[in-house]
Amino acid sequence: MSGPAVASALDLAGIFVFAVSGALAAVRQRLDVVGMVVLAGITALGGGIVRDLMIGAVPPAAFTDLGYVLVPLAASALVFFWHPQVTRLFPAVLLFDAAGLGLFCTTGTLKALDHGLSPVHAVLLGVVTAVGGGVLRDVLAGHIPSVLYDRQLYALPALLGAAAVAAADAADLHGGAVTAGAAVMAFAMRVLAMRYGWRAPLPRGVPD
Amino acid sequence: MSGPAVASALDLAGIFVFAVSGALAAVRQRLDVVGMVVLAGITALGGGIVRDLMIGAVPPAAFTDLGYVLVPLAASALVFFWHPQVTRLFPAVLLFDAAGLGLFCTTGTLKALDHGLSPVHAVLLGVVTAVGGGVLRDVLAGHIPSVLYDRQLYALPALLGAAAVAAADAADLHGGAVTAGAAVMAFAMRVLAMRYGWRAPLPRGVPD
Amino acid sequence: MSGPAVASALDLAGIFVFAVSGALAAVRQRLDVVGMVVLAGITALGGGIVRDLMIGAVPPAAFTDLGYVLVPLAASALVFFWHPQVTRLFPAVLLFDAAGLGLFCTTGTLKALDHGLSPVHAVLLGVVTAVGGGVLRDVLAGHIPSVLYDRQLYALPALLGAAAVAAADAADLHGGAVTAGAAVMAFAMRVLAMRYGWRAPLPRGVPD
Repeated sequence: MSGPAVASALDLAGIFVFAVSGALAAVRQRLDVVGMVVLAGITALGGGIVRDLMIGAVPPAAFTDLGYVLVPLAASALVFFWHPQVTRLFPAVLLFDAAGLGLFCTTGTLKALDHGLSPVHAVLLGVVTAVGGGVLRDVLAGHIPSVLYDRQLYALPALLGAAAVAAADAADLHGGAVTAGAAVMAFAMRVLAMRYGWRAPLPRGVPD
Repeated sequence: MSGPAVASALDLAGIFVFAVSGALAAVRQRLDVVGMVVLAGITALGGGIVRDLMIGAVPPAAFTDLGYVLVPLAASALVFFWHPQVTRLFPAVLLFDAAGLGLFCTTGTLKALDHGLSPVHAVLLGVVTAVGGGVLRDVLAGHIPSVLYDRQLYALPALLGAAAVAAADAADLHGGAVTAGAAVMAFAMRVLAMRYGWRAPLPRGVPD
Repeated sequence: MSGPAVASALDLAGIFVFAVSGALAAVRQRLDVVGMVVLAGITALGGGIVRDLMIGAVPPAAFTDLGYVLVPLAASALVFFWHPQVTRLFPAVLLFDAAGLGLFCTTGTLKALDHGLSPVHAVLLGVVTAVGGGVLRDVLAGHIPSVLYDRQLYALPALLGAAAVAAADAADLHGGAVTAGAAVMAFAMRVLAMRYGWRAPLPRGVPD
């Protein structure tokens, strides 16, 4: 497979995993088929749509590429019929979700840099790409977004991966290997945080 | 009246009905006058604004046409002073709401097709036009959007109307009669669903 | 200092105050450091981002100016370490917040007029600039936006300031003194409303 074909396949794989996580949230909330498709789609595509609106890339990729619609539908169909089995695979889902996080924070940062944003703003939009869909999923499902309070390291690994890509770009280092390295850093930090229970700090003086 | 004048009058009528439904939600939540105007406006205009942002039609129609601001204000004034009477007319409001649903899913799809989106993406944005305002209304009012869980057929009739318009367009069938036919299909499915209590399916194995 | 330098300094001061209010909301909700930074940023920048998306000014100012990222981070750091002290200063925070309200409703209206919107739509976006960030903060924090129900005069002073700027513009009156006068009107109305407990009306017949 060529480089762009690999990148596109990875992108759709990440979207699939995020869509599965959205569809499972719909099962937990006892939503109907409409709610499941909406949560799957918004979790998978929401972060990228917000990024594309901010950088002026309209229509957003989600509205120009057929795969971006079909993959969340496929994930919804899978979860609709076999959610008990998918739920049993949840540890694996978490691992794939961490891979999606690493992928989206890096590709999101690169796209923002390509559109001329400063490194700081590109990093911000890289993080938005990675975590924005989950934030929208939680708001629609009636929860405070878990990334805001649950102290798991989720946004911070995305920040690490995004910052690594922006730093490499500033040092004129480009290419798939650089992006992959940064994505692996974010993935590894997320997996280690889950494994060892690393927690984001609370404001000083707020008891655990 | 000419064709465009009829289309514009229907559009404002649909906006009025959606705004009334938003203003009534504000009464139920005991919001103040600001909350009522905001919910009326967002319910009536939210779906179209999201669609216009996605297709790059900025400023969105809601920010270029004075009627789109004045009609929700008029609906708010009506509900502010006479909400007990309006509430008593609720069965009629539901019927008009179904008409607005049929209208917006078809005109939204057409506008997206006009801006060069693929049929699948245009259908998606047609549904967003029809149900997006209600989703934003429910989120602002502190509820899970009813379209995600209440199993009423609401998004699915919009999907039917949007798909009919896109299929006709693909078959090179255009014009007001085609759009009206698709809108009537969506309207009829919505009304029949209410009359006979048709329900959207839950994920397999989730008890009623 | 030159006029533009003063305007820019005031703008960043307003963003700082709004960010402090977002960060304090994060403390009350016991969010972690990620939640604090997100709420600070969205409260300070959310209204302006929505306005810029609507008028087609992309990337929004928040994504082109480094100060718009650094100031909310500084506000978050302040509240993270010294929130008990900041909370004790809350009456002063409310006063500065009223100043930010006056500032943003007027500058937001002017920017929308500059982009060719009608006076009515520009006023609407001026109010969105001033109150939109707080609405997004409340939604993310899991609350109904306080501006929709709490009957404090918050959106109405913003409406007054925005309308004053648009009326002056229609009368061909321009310049910093006009803007400052309109901002002071909004500020004064907000402060008087707090001082004397002025309340927005409920729909007719809804008991207090």
